[in-house]
Amino acid sequence: MTEVRTLGECRTESPLSVLLGDRRTTRHYVDEDDRVLVDDTLGMVQARRDAGEPLVSFEPGGPRRRIYFDPAKTRAAVVTCGGLCPGLNDVIRALVLELHQAYGVRRVLGFRNGYQGFVPSYGHDVVDLTPTSVSGIDEKGGTVLGTSRGDQDPEVVADCLERMDVDILFVVGGDGSMRGAMAVSRVLAARGRHVAVVGVPKTVDNDLPFIDASFGFQTAFGRASESIRAAHTEARSTPNGVGLVKLMGRHSGFIACYAALATSDSDFVLVPEVPFALEGEDGVLAHVRRRVAEQGHALVVVAEGAGQEHLDDGREERDASGNVRLRDIGGLLRERIGADFDAHGQALSLRYIDPSYAIRSVPANPSDSVYCLRLAHAAVHAAMAGRTEVVVGRWHGRFVHVPMALAVSERNVVSESGDLWLAVLESTGQPARFGDAPATVTAH
Amino acid sequence: MTEVRTLGECRTESPLSVLLGDRRTTRHYVDEDDRVLVDDTLGMVQARRDAGEPLVSFEPGGPRRRIYFDPAKTRAAVVTCGGLCPGLNDVIRALVLELHQAYGVRRVLGFRNGYQGFVPSYGHDVVDLTPTSVSGIDEKGGTVLGTSRGDQDPEVVADCLERMDVDILFVVGGDGSMRGAMAVSRVLAARGRHVAVVGVPKTVDNDLPFIDASFGFQTAFGRASESIRAAHTEARSTPNGVGLVKLMGRHSGFIACYAALATSDSDFVLVPEVPFALEGEDGVLAHVRRRVAEQGHALVVVAEGAGQEHLDDGREERDASGNVRLRDIGGLLRERIGADFDAHGQALSLRYIDPSYAIRSVPANPSDSVYCLRLAHAAVHAAMAGRTEVVVGRWHGRFVHVPMALAVSERNVVSESGDLWLAVLESTGQPARFGDAPATVTAH
Amino acid sequence: MTEVRTLGECRTESPLSVLLGDRRTTRHYVDEDDRVLVDDTLGMVQARRDAGEPLVSFEPGGPRRRIYFDPAKTRAAVVTCGGLCPGLNDVIRALVLELHQAYGVRRVLGFRNGYQGFVPSYGHDVVDLTPTSVSGIDEKGGTVLGTSRGDQDPEVVADCLERMDVDILFVVGGDGSMRGAMAVSRVLAARGRHVAVVGVPKTVDNDLPFIDASFGFQTAFGRASESIRAAHTEARSTPNGVGLVKLMGRHSGFIACYAALATSDSDFVLVPEVPFALEGEDGVLAHVRRRVAEQGHALVVVAEGAGQEHLDDGREERDASGNVRLRDIGGLLRERIGADFDAHGQALSLRYIDPSYAIRSVPANPSDSVYCLRLAHAAVHAAMAGRTEVVVGRWHGRFVHVPMALAVSERNVVSESGDLWLAVLESTGQPARFGDAPATVTAH
Amino acid sequence: MTEVRTLGECRTESPLSVLLGDRRTTRHYVDEDDRVLVDDTLGMVQARRDAGEPLVSFEPGGPRRRIYFDPAKTRAAVVTCGGLCPGLNDVIRALVLELHQAYGVRRVLGFRNGYQGFVPSYGHDVVDLTPTSVSGIDEKGGTVLGTSRGDQDPEVVADCLERMDVDILFVVGGDGSMRGAMAVSRVLAARGRHVAVVGVPKTVDNDLPFIDASFGFQTAFGRASESIRAAHTEARSTPNGVGLVKLMGRHSGFIACYAALATSDSDFVLVPEVPFALEGEDGVLAHVRRRVAEQGHALVVVAEGAGQEHLDDGREERDASGNVRLRDIGGLLRERIGADFDAHGQALSLRYIDPSYAIRSVPANPSDSVYCLRLAHAAVHAAMAGRTEVVVGRWHGRFVHVPMALAVSERNVVSESGDLWLAVLESTGQPARFGDAPATVTAH
Repeated sequence: MTEVRTLGECRTESPLSVLLGDRRTTRHYVDEDDRVLVDDTLGMVQARRDAGEPLVSFEPGGPRRRIYFDPAKTRAAVVTCGGLCPGLNDVIRALVLELHQAYGVRRVLGFRNGYQGFVPSYGHDVVDLTPTSVSGIDEKGGTVLGTSRGDQDPEVVADCLERMDVDILFVVGGDGSMRGAMAVSRVLAARGRHVAVVGVPKTVDNDLPFIDASFGFQTAFGRASESIRAAHTEARSTPNGVGLVKLMGRHSGFIACYAALATSDSDFVLVPEVPFALEGEDGVLAHVRRRVAEQGHALVVVAEGAGQEHLDDGREERDASGNVRLRDIGGLLRERIGADFDAHGQALSLRYIDPSYAIRSVPANPSDSVYCLRLAHAAVHAAMAGRTEVVVGRWHGRFVHVPMALAVSERNVVSESGDLWLAVLESTGQPARFGDAPATVTAH
Repeated sequence: MTEVRTLGECRTESPLSVLLGDRRTTRHYVDEDDRVLVDDTLGMVQARRDAGEPLVSFEPGGPRRRIYFDPAKTRAAVVTCGGLCPGLNDVIRALVLELHQAYGVRRVLGFRNGYQGFVPSYGHDVVDLTPTSVSGIDEKGGTVLGTSRGDQDPEVVADCLERMDVDILFVVGGDGSMRGAMAVSRVLAARGRHVAVVGVPKTVDNDLPFIDASFGFQTAFGRASESIRAAHTEARSTPNGVGLVKLMGRHSGFIACYAALATSDSDFVLVPEVPFALEGEDGVLAHVRRRVAEQGHALVVVAEGAGQEHLDDGREERDASGNVRLRDIGGLLRERIGADFDAHGQALSLRYIDPSYAIRSVPANPSDSVYCLRLAHAAVHAAMAGRTEVVVGRWHGRFVHVPMALAVSERNVVSESGDLWLAVLESTGQPARFGDAPATVTAH
Repeated sequence: MTEVRTLGECRTESPLSVLLGDRRTTRHYVDEDDRVLVDDTLGMVQARRDAGEPLVSFEPGGPRRRIYFDPAKTRAAVVTCGGLCPGLNDVIRALVLELHQAYGVRRVLGFRNGYQGFVPSYGHDVVDLTPTSVSGIDEKGGTVLGTSRGDQDPEVVADCLERMDVDILFVVGGDGSMRGAMAVSRVLAARGRHVAVVGVPKTVDNDLPFIDASFGFQTAFGRASESIRAAHTEARSTPNGVGLVKLMGRHSGFIACYAALATSDSDFVLVPEVPFALEGEDGVLAHVRRRVAEQGHALVVVAEGAGQEHLDDGREERDASGNVRLRDIGGLLRERIGADFDAHGQALSLRYIDPSYAIRSVPANPSDSVYCLRLAHAAVHAAMAGRTEVVVGRWHGRFVHVPMALAVSERNVVSESGDLWLAVLESTGQPARFGDAPATVTAH
Repeated sequence: MTEVRTLGECRTESPLSVLLGDRRTTRHYVDEDDRVLVDDTLGMVQARRDAGEPLVSFEPGGPRRRIYFDPAKTRAAVVTCGGLCPGLNDVIRALVLELHQAYGVRRVLGFRNGYQGFVPSYGHDVVDLTPTSVSGIDEKGGTVLGTSRGDQDPEVVADCLERMDVDILFVVGGDGSMRGAMAVSRVLAARGRHVAVVGVPKTVDNDLPFIDASFGFQTAFGRASESIRAAHTEARSTPNGVGLVKLMGRHSGFIACYAALATSDSDFVLVPEVPFALEGEDGVLAHVRRRVAEQGHALVVVAEGAGQEHLDDGREERDASGNVRLRDIGGLLRERIGADFDAHGQALSLRYIDPSYAIRSVPANPSDSVYCLRLAHAAVHAAMAGRTEVVVGRWHGRFVHVPMALAVSERNVVSESGDLWLAVLESTGQPARFGDAPATVTAH
């Protein structure tokens, strides 16, 4: 399950030692016997031992002494897919610089606008990525390659990669894009082509499993916390003020939780993982009303994917990526809080802030920049060593190779019994559950 | 028209010279004969001369050698009214520090939540403002005093001021609040009370006349420009991307203009002052569509008060301050642009960003902090010298006293023939007028 | 004195009306009779009248209906000189875009590294400046053209301009660079060449006369205020803490004054314009010591050019621009404060912060970005209308043409009797003068 | 070695379930059998197994179902020691709020100015810490409690704690402060007092072992990266530009490495862990000179503790904390680079930036704020459960209890053979070693 596919034997000596200038470099190569444990508690390790199961571990990332591809003859390609995320340009830049400078791979192509870039009918141009062309792009948000949602026919993508003689494809994208990458890889494998398909997992919502945190997440929740601060300022500056902030988070409330903890001014945090009742003495509305009565104001943070059960009208719409279109929980709460205050004859001054895309279109902060750089280095090392259908991630602080199939097998969510959610409960003072909400929530 | 009402003769020697430690201070006192010209062009001056009219000028702000109030016996009060604006806390802090430290006025009261704070039935407490209590408040957005919209009965407010023995009232607020302040001042004058009522004009929209720029405006448009940058990033990162940003600006498009110029990435800027047609070959919709076809993306910035004529349904709603409730031009544009692309079979990826309150709830930037401090100093100097029904402003770089009646007599708007709007036209490349929009627009 | 040299009659119709799309544009052209008053007080105007003198006024900036150069045949050039300043790239970008898009001037050259760029022996390349090449440069600090200090032989520069067929030269630089520009202009004029030499005045210290504020100044003092905040935090967090911050300001203390006012946490501000005694009961050292004894800590802000009289050892060194090398007043104060506390047996925890170049190497903030854009537009309008040996500036809020000779005729300094310095005295509570410092200070 | 001392049996039921409002809370309590593995690789685990050794693990942090102290009778105290670090106020605030709101501990004292605060002769006051008094302090840098360097007599400190009836002491400080805390704890234990002494480890240099990253580190290197960006801008904007940036890092180069990677513009990074030669063909000076010749500029980042061997003059000075005073490697490099360019007749424009305290005096960024909050929660949980002589940390993403003795047993340094340093080598292109520097360096 944690084993990584490899294109073949690594026979070429890595040029890194030459680059780094002396024999001491050798110490930097990954020890081929090194493995990073997936489990992190004594109990988990002992349980496996007791059950006679082997310990599960990931292959660590990093440079190998011997590599699969001959740099002088290798052509790499980069594509960015799906929604924007802080750090995309850092990743692109670091991929290009590492290929050029550490390995001497001079030919790097950039395909434009996601998988559309491989499909001739869209007519997007292909760009050469060089150290000069990527200089300074990390200071800008977005992706210089452009992006798009949705899959394309893997046969058509494979045709393009063959035609362009691509040996290594770096896909920067989310779970849908990784599924697309696997499909392309299998088509190529079936055709007998040895192409390394390596993913750099991207999700501003931090909802990918087996990854400590996704790149750009810190930047995004940091920006989101500014909206919370603004809403708090508004709510506190007026009698009976309620600040309401809607944040990104389709299936996972990480941005809402972290942004709320960053200021610790929030009174209520609503996430997709924890259902809540609106009505009733222990529902959200009554709690908000009472908090305003007690402290003069209240601050509510809601993830966009929260409380969808309150909006369900039996119909379902999907976007180009096949994601279910979310209903507007922010609008619903604004309306319902207003109606509830009205019904109770209580004055209300509600301020609604929805920063939407503004939290994901910014350049990466310094921490994310470093993380993107190191992820990209790990991706290049993996690809040069012939690993394929693999994503690079950080697990327990170590860079590792996670098979793509595993990386898309489930979703990382805020655990209702974990210490992050506990910190939210402690920081907000909100009840563990609002009202008679169902005891468990199924994954969306 | 530019003459300022004064409570009476200034008989007390200013304590400033003692504070500043030696005789050299005297040079800092305002020369009583100094007057700041209202006109700034040779033509205006000559025209007045030719017409036999006197030159119009403002009284300059600053400390007077002799003052009206005896600091030891003076009680001052501060109230903040209307919507939030960056710098409110800087103004409060600087008023208190200047009263205490420069003049030795030790008793400063803070009335809470705007004019509500003077009305017993609301039950808001009154706070003592001291150097300690205002320490560090300038690092936070909002107002520590709270605020509210709307007037209160001037008789009731005057009762409260009499009861609390207030000699000087500083009102930080917009044109509505200044009208309220005049009403209170007149009640007090009719009762024979010598209370100085001094305004620090506040409008995040920069729509007050006879003031170079309102405090907080720079901070606000600076934040607004971040939303434009985000929308630009989104629009450019996807095929057929349109970024749409709605910004504050009920009657005046200053925030939209300056924020657009700050990044110079905007393709279209729509403001209340310049009407526009949506439909037709030269309407906004066709222009946006063509721009996307040409450069792959487009960026539209719209002030909330723009294009209300397209939303008029004959009904009119007003908020607590008596302002007409604006219809949602952002929503309309989003919908109409979408429909227009659909109708022309053109793909579209529209990103809508509305930072709303997030641009006005932040702390003042350093420039605004300095400006707030100096405005507050000018307000204290004016009040101590017995000026009343006056606001302090900066005109041609000089701090001046503007009679309240004059300050609310008209609205500062973006002149369609001025150099600011020209800069917008040059920077965006948009047409001087969209389609068959009416040639003039009446003030809202 | 305020009259601007013009190359000749303006015979070409401006293409702006076409660009702006209709006849309404005409309203944007500058009225040729419009003049901006230099004086701003009633007294000044009346005094001139009484003396029978004409009123002094500047020619306003802005587009003219008829221009001197035929855009299709015009080649422009840009050079940036002297130290860095926030906004240089904004100016370059706006010059290029305005030339291209508003006037249709397609050939714009960038000379590299200041006046060195015109001198063949340095071997710097010349770059083509196009809308594409300047895209996004405003998001970066510094200057994409590079810069250098010091003059070059005006004959050699003129040779280069002739050789490259340059019709318009934009010089972005300080007073030294403007003197150099005048020299070049005169050489060219003597050779019978009609070249417009237009300056965009640059000085991070804000020390140019007849300009409300220099571009980049707000950004610079904003950054400087962060160092003050850091030093304040350090000083307050430890017993007997003294924060000492050295800021830019060779001859003028504007950065020190504004940065200090922006936080209003400073206890002492020392500037070149106001001499001070170090020793004695009323000297700086005793004041600092007493302030620490009273409030537990103290914060001192010093401009690099302040107190040079305390460092004078009779020798004088000059840098490549011919500026006198300043002695290190920061180091002196650090040493002397330490010795003074020692001598009085008082514990001391001194934190010294010198942000140096870090305040001038950053991108312009949004206010400065707008200002740079508009200055650049004014410069292009002036040049296209054949104005030469002129700098563009803003005076009393209006963009104006200031003859170069006038712009370098004196230095803008903090007036000891003005309201800025008064605000500093009020905000810090420091004495108007320290000790027996000489009553006046001569300009450096 | 990883076992934590506990004051006694936990007999009181935790009030957390009541706070969190229902039975579901129970899921949040830490499972007493849960242990976090210290090792993270399969090889380490197997090696222990092969050697017949038990697996080493930490006790996890988090709330216990039963606690040691009765909240109603408990008095807690907080002290902050040593140099400033971003996040100190976040920690203070979160300790106070968690004690009050989660456990109902109402009496929290703040001792001022580090260990001095316990010593009567210093005369520092003791402050009550309440939710109101800590409101908003997280938005400011520094520590509201003040701090100081150096130890105090543990008997005197213990006397004070006894006198004030303190049951729980939170020490926020570095390794020296933790040694002091252990000494105090042992004195109290010897006197039969049951006082929990819990540390929140603080080190801006990130040099503490068994902690993924220290709080404030991200904020600090983020600020440091701004200086690198400024120096890069300066260096690139002038011919033969060299930017030289000195950053914090006495024994560990983490700030230098991360700040350099954040921009990836640095050409050379010098850290204490990796010795370097200055002279010779492969020394730092020659490399800098060649880099300038090749690319026109160069950027050098040096940690303050690097290259001390080049400054050693046989004398050693120490500060109040007993730390060896570092010699000025920044000044040395500036001088030596200048001399080297001179000697080779090469022009040089060197810009030196030393942000010093400015990187540690700022408020925590959002990521650090969240981390501080969660660390403080863990510290409160640990203390309430009677853990003592323990610090809280994060290990492999989990909050854990690390015995103080272990936490000060060694120093976390940049491993020359680790992937962080490799990333630096790849990003800069600098040689693995400069010249004939000794092959290993002993810990300072």
